[in-house]
Amino acid sequence: MDFEHSQRTRNLLERLNAFMDAHVYPNELRYHEEIAANRWSQPPVLKALKAEARSAGLWNLFLPDEDHGAGLGNVDYAPLCEVMGRVHFSAQVFNCSAPDSGNIETLIRYGTDAQKDRWLQLLLDGEIRSAFAMTEPDVASSDATNIAAPITRDGDDYVINGRKWWISGLGDPACRLIIFLGLSNGDAPKHQRHSMILVPRDAPGITVKRPLTVFGYDDAPQGHMEITFEDVRVPAANMLLGEGRGFEIAQGRLGPGRIHHCMRLIGLAERCLELMCRRVKTRTTFGKPVSEQSVTLERIAEARILIDQARLLTMKAAWMMDKVGNKAARAEIAMIKVAAPGMACKVIDWAIQAHGAAGLCEDVVLANYYAHARKLRFADGPDEIHRNQIGRIELARYGEAG
Amino acid sequence: MDFEHSQRTRNLLERLNAFMDAHVYPNELRYHEEIAANRWSQPPVLKALKAEARSAGLWNLFLPDEDHGAGLGNVDYAPLCEVMGRVHFSAQVFNCSAPDSGNIETLIRYGTDAQKDRWLQLLLDGEIRSAFAMTEPDVASSDATNIAAPITRDGDDYVINGRKWWISGLGDPACRLIIFLGLSNGDAPKHQRHSMILVPRDAPGITVKRPLTVFGYDDAPQGHMEITFEDVRVPAANMLLGEGRGFEIAQGRLGPGRIHHCMRLIGLAERCLELMCRRVKTRTTFGKPVSEQSVTLERIAEARILIDQARLLTMKAAWMMDKVGNKAARAEIAMIKVAAPGMACKVIDWAIQAHGAAGLCEDVVLANYYAHARKLRFADGPDEIHRNQIGRIELARYGEAG
Amino acid sequence: MDFEHSQRTRNLLERLNAFMDAHVYPNELRYHEEIAANRWSQPPVLKALKAEARSAGLWNLFLPDEDHGAGLGNVDYAPLCEVMGRVHFSAQVFNCSAPDSGNIETLIRYGTDAQKDRWLQLLLDGEIRSAFAMTEPDVASSDATNIAAPITRDGDDYVINGRKWWISGLGDPACRLIIFLGLSNGDAPKHQRHSMILVPRDAPGITVKRPLTVFGYDDAPQGHMEITFEDVRVPAANMLLGEGRGFEIAQGRLGPGRIHHCMRLIGLAERCLELMCRRVKTRTTFGKPVSEQSVTLERIAEARILIDQARLLTMKAAWMMDKVGNKAARAEIAMIKVAAPGMACKVIDWAIQAHGAAGLCEDVVLANYYAHARKLRFADGPDEIHRNQIGRIELARYGEAG
Amino acid sequence: MDFEHSQRTRNLLERLNAFMDAHVYPNELRYHEEIAANRWSQPPVLKALKAEARSAGLWNLFLPDEDHGAGLGNVDYAPLCEVMGRVHFSAQVFNCSAPDSGNIETLIRYGTDAQKDRWLQLLLDGEIRSAFAMTEPDVASSDATNIAAPITRDGDDYVINGRKWWISGLGDPACRLIIFLGLSNGDAPKHQRHSMILVPRDAPGITVKRPLTVFGYDDAPQGHMEITFEDVRVPAANMLLGEGRGFEIAQGRLGPGRIHHCMRLIGLAERCLELMCRRVKTRTTFGKPVSEQSVTLERIAEARILIDQARLLTMKAAWMMDKVGNKAARAEIAMIKVAAPGMACKVIDWAIQAHGAAGLCEDVVLANYYAHARKLRFADGPDEIHRNQIGRIELARYGEAG
Repeated sequence: MDFEHSQRTRNLLERLNAFMDAHVYPNELRYHEEIAANRWSQPPVLKALKAEARSAGLWNLFLPDEDHGAGLGNVDYAPLCEVMGRVHFSAQVFNCSAPDSGNIETLIRYGTDAQKDRWLQLLLDGEIRSAFAMTEPDVASSDATNIAAPITRDGDDYVINGRKWWISGLGDPACRLIIFLGLSNGDAPKHQRHSMILVPRDAPGITVKRPLTVFGYDDAPQGHMEITFEDVRVPAANMLLGEGRGFEIAQGRLGPGRIHHCMRLIGLAERCLELMCRRVKTRTTFGKPVSEQSVTLERIAEARILIDQARLLTMKAAWMMDKVGNKAARAEIAMIKVAAPGMACKVIDWAIQAHGAAGLCEDVVLANYYAHARKLRFADGPDEIHRNQIGRIELARYGEAG
Repeated sequence: MDFEHSQRTRNLLERLNAFMDAHVYPNELRYHEEIAANRWSQPPVLKALKAEARSAGLWNLFLPDEDHGAGLGNVDYAPLCEVMGRVHFSAQVFNCSAPDSGNIETLIRYGTDAQKDRWLQLLLDGEIRSAFAMTEPDVASSDATNIAAPITRDGDDYVINGRKWWISGLGDPACRLIIFLGLSNGDAPKHQRHSMILVPRDAPGITVKRPLTVFGYDDAPQGHMEITFEDVRVPAANMLLGEGRGFEIAQGRLGPGRIHHCMRLIGLAERCLELMCRRVKTRTTFGKPVSEQSVTLERIAEARILIDQARLLTMKAAWMMDKVGNKAARAEIAMIKVAAPGMACKVIDWAIQAHGAAGLCEDVVLANYYAHARKLRFADGPDEIHRNQIGRIELARYGEAG
Repeated sequence: MDFEHSQRTRNLLERLNAFMDAHVYPNELRYHEEIAANRWSQPPVLKALKAEARSAGLWNLFLPDEDHGAGLGNVDYAPLCEVMGRVHFSAQVFNCSAPDSGNIETLIRYGTDAQKDRWLQLLLDGEIRSAFAMTEPDVASSDATNIAAPITRDGDDYVINGRKWWISGLGDPACRLIIFLGLSNGDAPKHQRHSMILVPRDAPGITVKRPLTVFGYDDAPQGHMEITFEDVRVPAANMLLGEGRGFEIAQGRLGPGRIHHCMRLIGLAERCLELMCRRVKTRTTFGKPVSEQSVTLERIAEARILIDQARLLTMKAAWMMDKVGNKAARAEIAMIKVAAPGMACKVIDWAIQAHGAAGLCEDVVLANYYAHARKLRFADGPDEIHRNQIGRIELARYGEAG
Repeated sequence: MDFEHSQRTRNLLERLNAFMDAHVYPNELRYHEEIAANRWSQPPVLKALKAEARSAGLWNLFLPDEDHGAGLGNVDYAPLCEVMGRVHFSAQVFNCSAPDSGNIETLIRYGTDAQKDRWLQLLLDGEIRSAFAMTEPDVASSDATNIAAPITRDGDDYVINGRKWWISGLGDPACRLIIFLGLSNGDAPKHQRHSMILVPRDAPGITVKRPLTVFGYDDAPQGHMEITFEDVRVPAANMLLGEGRGFEIAQGRLGPGRIHHCMRLIGLAERCLELMCRRVKTRTTFGKPVSEQSVTLERIAEARILIDQARLLTMKAAWMMDKVGNKAARAEIAMIKVAAPGMACKVIDWAIQAHGAAGLCEDVVLANYYAHARKLRFADGPDEIHRNQIGRIELARYGEAG
């Protein structure tokens, strides 16, 4: 057993941290100011940072495919992804942000040559962005077999209808592609009813109804959109992998997506703990620095323990994914999906408390980070679904059910 | 021991609930739409509801003073206040909202006739609103002796300076009066250094810098403002009670303020539990209604227990305040100030989880209510200050310290 | 609403506390020494204290029946019961201990004259003790319909078989009566299959197999026994109320039994908090009294809040039982059955932590009290059963299920 | 980063598990029966198992010293130690139990040749056992500078006095050696006041007062003893390392001791989770297997997450100790000392709950294991001390204190 990162990762980590210090942290304020001035467009500073990151060779680090990306396994990518988690928008800087990363992997693994020609390079170059449309307001989407938006074959086309929401990234004008999960054959066996299909953002019949807020944040310019599809028509060749194979693709893309979220949450929690430590050193109540109160020390200690445990569990899951594949690692992936957002919510809440009311407002990142971490207790399924699965896997070790 | 409300309260409760059913709940959506259309002004629907409530005799119910208000004690007012807590803006409908309620009580108890003549009736009529300016960004205001904004005597005037924030209600154009707590004599004994003084909102030198957000919400039109005072000059006659007596007044107003917050939080939590119950009955995952999952039943049960316990503790504190006064009831007041917001945060979080991602957005009140409840873990002092006080009172029962 | 006890209760409380101070606390050590010397017999000091209490008129206080006992309702008895909970054996001193109290109520409410003649007065006089035999090792007894030990009619007799465990009080040689719950008709509707029947302790065929331990405590001399019944024969006249009416009786006796447990747990928790407060004042670490650490103050505060909330909830349930009856108060009874043991376990655990390793051993009551409180998370059904019931009652307020 | 064990460890693990299956698990019941029959002597089955383990080459595995033991680092020993933790007495089977392991390491690192000649081989052979006497009833021993029992030079001897308690292992008649920590020079700088000295168990003046219980368990035959030293005289040559160097030795021995406890706790928690899983599959309530209740699945999932996280954190600490030494790894050691016992207490408590009242008694190991895990929240310092240290180390990353 060895807890040291590989030489390659240590080098990348050093370069990434240097880049963050030189370019990202100093531009956080500017990023938010530019968005405040022009809410629903990519801020110029982000474009500049992307160009800088690409020329620094810190680009598409998430992509295990060596032909198109960094060729790092999950274990090697994890600490880099964690660093990106420290600043909300920085995964975009390095072209490593969701849902583009998952969409790129989906295209590489399941796309036809024609599909790749049309979309893949643009995404790899960070020229366009993309969205993933699954969740629906009218059904409990945590059980994905409930998804009901129809994809209907009509001659050489598919016709798409339905209402989707929580479609992240669609607020960005650079978003040109939607990967749509819908019901293509309600009579098929349960896990062969759904398909994934590529839908150009500008296809007629797509209407963005509104950006949803998470707590009070609309997360502009990416946003989380509610959209309707009314008789949206795309060529049959836009189907991914084949009709009825939507769940097969979903399984493939979920593992990495989840672990990236968890890695970033660890970096985010580290940042919040740092803010907490710095804050308590500057304030005095009743004649004593807040940092000297034993209740402060206890919370810092618990935060440190929670973060380190979540990081190790995430690294273990990453190692399992690299070693035995996403399917055999499904218990570990489910475990971090429960542990990391829960950990982050607790740590951020303590950090907020240490800041007093300042912790709730826009002067520090904490409340916004809390909203994000809280949302991740739903993304890719709520905690309850994952705990259920973990429990069943554990029980299965002891033979058949009850 | 008797857990039944008085006849008068039961009557008022029935009338209040009827009013809520007839006028408030049906107008919730309209209230939010009017604000969305015109963020920083009192929405017309609110003005209409206030007139309605006043003519229905449901007005100034909070006020124990019989000459000016309902003349109810805390025990009798509590269940009414709870009902108002179910809808975020409804305390305003009945002219029972913070910080006006506290400011009105302050004026009645400590104001001169001239001060009352100028401000009291306008506030009692709901014609104007008011603010309370204490918290400062540069010091740990949870220890109020840290407050540093100077109030300086200059001839027949006082001159006021400093930066204050979290000044709730100042966003409403109807806000005409600020009660300002500042440092009038830094050399006096610790609890005689501060004063409270009446400052007209339109006094020259007052600048509203920005509305602060609470988890992304700006709580328009009331808002929580950051403001600066630059050489703001008011007549010496605006001083409340006397120079150096700010803490004396603060003690008097804190008790009722805290208990009103807690009462409303209980109603707010009840509403969220109701939303949770209704939601889980409408959704099915993996072939089973969510309401039948034992984990759902456990959370509903825990929510019910937490709410009922917090309500009883709040009623006990109210009874103590009525019976032995705010000072003798200070442990009980501190206890509910810790218990109620913590309870509400837990219950709302469970309700959010039961709603899936819908629980985070503007379609249900939950995320907004969470932000409000979380904020109340700071208002009038963070949990830590109150727990400290409760602990010390408990230890004092067993003789001198250590 | 009024949180003051009745005049009668205040008087009794004063006398009871005086008795505790004069007779019970000073004899705690002696009680334990006498048991250590002679584990499975009633210690002489207990007999003496019982005589004393009876002559002081502090006897059968639990019994709402005025002909046989104090005639107090639940609200009036609660604060007395709480005081008894402070010392593990003191409920016996006042002839108010389980399971005798429940058995006495059962006999009064459901017994025939002949049954009363034989057993009731002896129990009321504290001359004999009794047991209640329900739980079985081979089935999940938390669902009482699982109870399988057969009661079979044979001519003028019933023949009883089966293995029961956790039969508390049977270790005391004064225990002469067992109320036995068994399966009398497996083909009847679910809640008419079981009966309760009176079984003399010395009936042939009863074998005590062993005392069970709770954590490491055997709770001598009462004990929690595992016993077998082999063809134990009792006259048909020993049947209570009628064949198949076991659950009807069980419902009647459960309410008071549960609330007495909860009342005592509150007294027990108060005692532990007192021990905690006294301890932290005597110890110093790293140059500072433990009582001055903010983490200590936080735990004391949380303990005070938890205890006061649990007491109020218990009082509310008591008031409901007195006012609308056990059945209408079933949600409230279930709520305290969850809240009180959980609260007690938390408070005791903090008190243990404050004592260091001393808190684990026999020098203080804490570990023993913890074992007792933990056991009460099972007595009369585990938490899960009660939460399930509370959840279902809550959901029922909003119409039919799912 | 690599989560796989070394080849050597995998081999040893296979052999150890085979030994456990063949010899230890099948003898658990016999072990407890033999102790029940003869409480304060080593049961014959233990002696037989020790001989078996030694001849199987599974002996002194804990000892990093290659000349005297297995020569395994902490990382390699950890998974073996975990397996031993599954059965309470099994560390003794492999001569790897506390406090002998720590005492052996102390003798090897700090003993003179004469001290080693007298004691070391006997301990390595498992012929004798030993104790470590530090904790005192009259001071808060969690701050070890409070230790007050005097060690006084008198000619060629030291004379030892004082009262110690929680001296584990002294109940075993094989215990022949006590390592005593006492105050040798109260005027020296704080961390040079104390010394460690070797005291033969049979030295005149040593009196065992009583075995202490943990919850109700006396942990015979090892026990946790209270003992007095009255003018106990030992040769000056028995001093370890030198007068005033007690804390220096203590620092050296604490790291491994703590990590061994944590490793064993992980195995213990795994065993309890296994018991829980097996149990819930065998019980049905309200027509449904308990294993199918979502609340059961949630707890199993949480237990799995907690255990895996605690194991990884412990492995990381072990790796740090091997890589950078105990001192540089002190934050990590403190973190597992907090995390592992807390985790174990939670997991065991859930397992108890899943067993119903059976979980409290001697029929399953759970309550006894709970008592043990709870005790480990005090051993080598209570949680609070460790959290304090972790918090201070974290804050030190951000410069000087407040």
